[in-house]
Amino acid sequence: AMSDLRKLAAEELRSRRDELRVQHEEFRKRGLKLDMTRGKPAPAQLDLARGLLDSLDADHIKSQDGTDVRNYGGLDGISEMKRLFSEILGVPTAQIVVGGNSSLQMMHDTVVRALMHGVPDGDAPWLRTQPKFICPAPGYDRHFSICQHLGIDMLVVDQHQDGPDVDSIERLVAADPSIKGLWCVPKYSNPTGVTCSVEVVERLASMKSAAPDFRLFWDNAYAVHDLYESGDELSDILSACERAGHPNRAVVFASTSKMSFAGAGVAAMASSLANVADAKKHLSFQTIGPDKLNQLRHARFFGTGDGLRAHMRKLAEVIRPKFDIVTRILDRELGGKEIAQWTKPRGGYFVSLDTLDGCASAVVRMADQAGVKLTPAGATFPYGKDPRDRNIRIAPTFPPLEQVKLAMQVLAVCVELASVERLLQ
Amino acid sequence: AMSDLRKLAAEELRSRRDELRVQHEEFRKRGLKLDMTRGKPAPAQLDLARGLLDSLDADHIKSQDGTDVRNYGGLDGISEMKRLFSEILGVPTAQIVVGGNSSLQMMHDTVVRALMHGVPDGDAPWLRTQPKFICPAPGYDRHFSICQHLGIDMLVVDQHQDGPDVDSIERLVAADPSIKGLWCVPKYSNPTGVTCSVEVVERLASMKSAAPDFRLFWDNAYAVHDLYESGDELSDILSACERAGHPNRAVVFASTSKMSFAGAGVAAMASSLANVADAKKHLSFQTIGPDKLNQLRHARFFGTGDGLRAHMRKLAEVIRPKFDIVTRILDRELGGKEIAQWTKPRGGYFVSLDTLDGCASAVVRMADQAGVKLTPAGATFPYGKDPRDRNIRIAPTFPPLEQVKLAMQVLAVCVELASVERLLQ
Repeated sequence: AMSDLRKLAAEELRSRRDELRVQHEEFRKRGLKLDMTRGKPAPAQLDLARGLLDSLDADHIKSQDGTDVRNYGGLDGISEMKRLFSEILGVPTAQIVVGGNSSLQMMHDTVVRALMHGVPDGDAPWLRTQPKFICPAPGYDRHFSICQHLGIDMLVVDQHQDGPDVDSIERLVAADPSIKGLWCVPKYSNPTGVTCSVEVVERLASMKSAAPDFRLFWDNAYAVHDLYESGDELSDILSACERAGHPNRAVVFASTSKMSFAGAGVAAMASSLANVADAKKHLSFQTIGPDKLNQLRHARFFGTGDGLRAHMRKLAEVIRPKFDIVTRILDRELGGKEIAQWTKPRGGYFVSLDTLDGCASAVVRMADQAGVKLTPAGATFPYGKDPRDRNIRIAPTFPPLEQVKLAMQVLAVCVELASVERLLQ
Repeated sequence: AMSDLRKLAAEELRSRRDELRVQHEEFRKRGLKLDMTRGKPAPAQLDLARGLLDSLDADHIKSQDGTDVRNYGGLDGISEMKRLFSEILGVPTAQIVVGGNSSLQMMHDTVVRALMHGVPDGDAPWLRTQPKFICPAPGYDRHFSICQHLGIDMLVVDQHQDGPDVDSIERLVAADPSIKGLWCVPKYSNPTGVTCSVEVVERLASMKSAAPDFRLFWDNAYAVHDLYESGDELSDILSACERAGHPNRAVVFASTSKMSFAGAGVAAMASSLANVADAKKHLSFQTIGPDKLNQLRHARFFGTGDGLRAHMRKLAEVIRPKFDIVTRILDRELGGKEIAQWTKPRGGYFVSLDTLDGCASAVVRMADQAGVKLTPAGATFPYGKDPRDRNIRIAPTFPPLEQVKLAMQVLAVCVELASVERLLQ
């Protein structure tokens, strides 16, 4: 039975600290080189998609509508791939644009276009005034980096168990017309693994916004990335927005990066017909079209939505043991000590760990000394600043299971050591 | 022997017009559907690259430096592909960024970044003032569209036999600090097939610019696209700029779109180390990286620069007869009549035809009536306005040889008919 560390006497804490220092030093001496930083698929996951490499043969390189996918054209992608994303996202194919290998690029470019040209419902490019985005945190660092790089101010709200703090969001968005956007990973959020509740989706869709051209940047990166047989259900933001009289409010992004090949997948966006037409108008100046050959490769490999879901179950078999070992070690080593909380996600790519306030940076530093690279503390917050210095993102998918286990043992020691030192201050 | 139509008496012209009208009507009745609009490779060209579809096998998916090309990462491309572009462009690999499937996108995004953030040597985003680009014309319509879409003013200069009119360019660029860029297709230009002379390259590199951050957008789309055994030689703009003390002036673009698959090739940009570092900084916010799998596929398929050049010779075998038939029919039908001039390019993708002033729109309209689609008159000029209404771009690569022949017969009749009608006015 674990005891609450916060209730130990100073003498007991010092003794525990000395034990932990010895353990930390032992890890340090082993010269480990473990990397838990990024949400990358493991080679074993990528191997499951090896059929993609020869899913096309040279005599069948036309898409269903007769397009030679090797040649120019097809600005918004081939119909097979629209249909597949339609099944993944529950959105009609006419509302889908299929792109290249990067949904991040589609998000970035969507923001850039809005800054330079504006969007439907708006009356000016967003650059005309100082735009602001709401950033639920902890969240995805690359969303925040886009804002910072493009000069968009970020307003932080909390990420709760049912999605972003919608009370605060409603208040902010109703009052300030310079708030143009909100980032959201609505399912198995990065890093907290939360799926927006039906109520949160409804409120985000129907809330009043001072800006007529306010947009939800809905990064549905983990739409079909369930770890267990029954996955979380996310309700459809596009139809919720349409019902609420805000048909152009949400722009949805997705990709096969964590279904097929991380660097060579297919990305898509989905939105209202007006937003799709607007995006296509701008895209027509940027490119002649995306790589349709890779789209057809994917369509042939996955086949239908059912085929894709079967593939996702195979991927889950590879990933699940790694998530299980993460939470098992955290439970075993830190459970009951009241110095940390961690998520037990049912999908997605991350486990989120909160230490005692003011400990996360120390934990990441100690882990690094012991040969375990973690995502920098603060990375899950805008400007890299976690106001309570407590959140650590754990990315267990890439390293082999044994390495995940070892890294978590190191991490548990570091969390407890940093906590004890903190309590002794 | 052809006679100069301009010297015919009105009676003779009327009689010729009536003959031509009959011919035009005969074509019209045949219900032809021929398309000479875009510079697309023919299926037979694409078939030559069928080996690309299985150039990778699932057990050898690492690049030379050990990177698993299926996974995330590698912002500026794999080393094999840098080496291949290095051979194509004569630029050190360190100065190359290899991207996705579209050089147009790299150009568009380079302009957007300059507008929003500025570039090395500059002190402000280009958006701060009203920027202008110099546009040699006739030129590539998509370059001009980028400017028009992004609100960049275009100053037209003539395209000569040795490249753009460098006298005018020097004068303009020296005087006006709001001139930030120049578009140039330096080899086998679109549509006139001209390659910049050594002197033009030197003068563009060394001329004084009022804007310290003036840029040459050097779209070397046809770097290795020779039709004949001995191709045009283009001197190296990057080293010329460096020698002239303007190391950051030129940004070079290229792609394999017209080497491998038009829609699924690999694009690259090349510039000074400072420009490359600047581009990579911005790219790191836009994407995790390009499709490295497709890059490795290309590197394996082409092998070395020699392998690539051998492939280009095979492509030339397919294309050359189409170019030959275009000029042969123009020579036979229009030679000596003094109503048109046309290029006989040694590479690239287009034949450029100049009618008598004020006839191009009529020719395109008449050809359309007879079932032959041509690029709209004016498309090769900024804002779609050819001040002399005389330039027609002929794109012979896509249709089968017999269709090219037929389309050119139609075109020749239309050119002569429009000319005769013009002379009769």
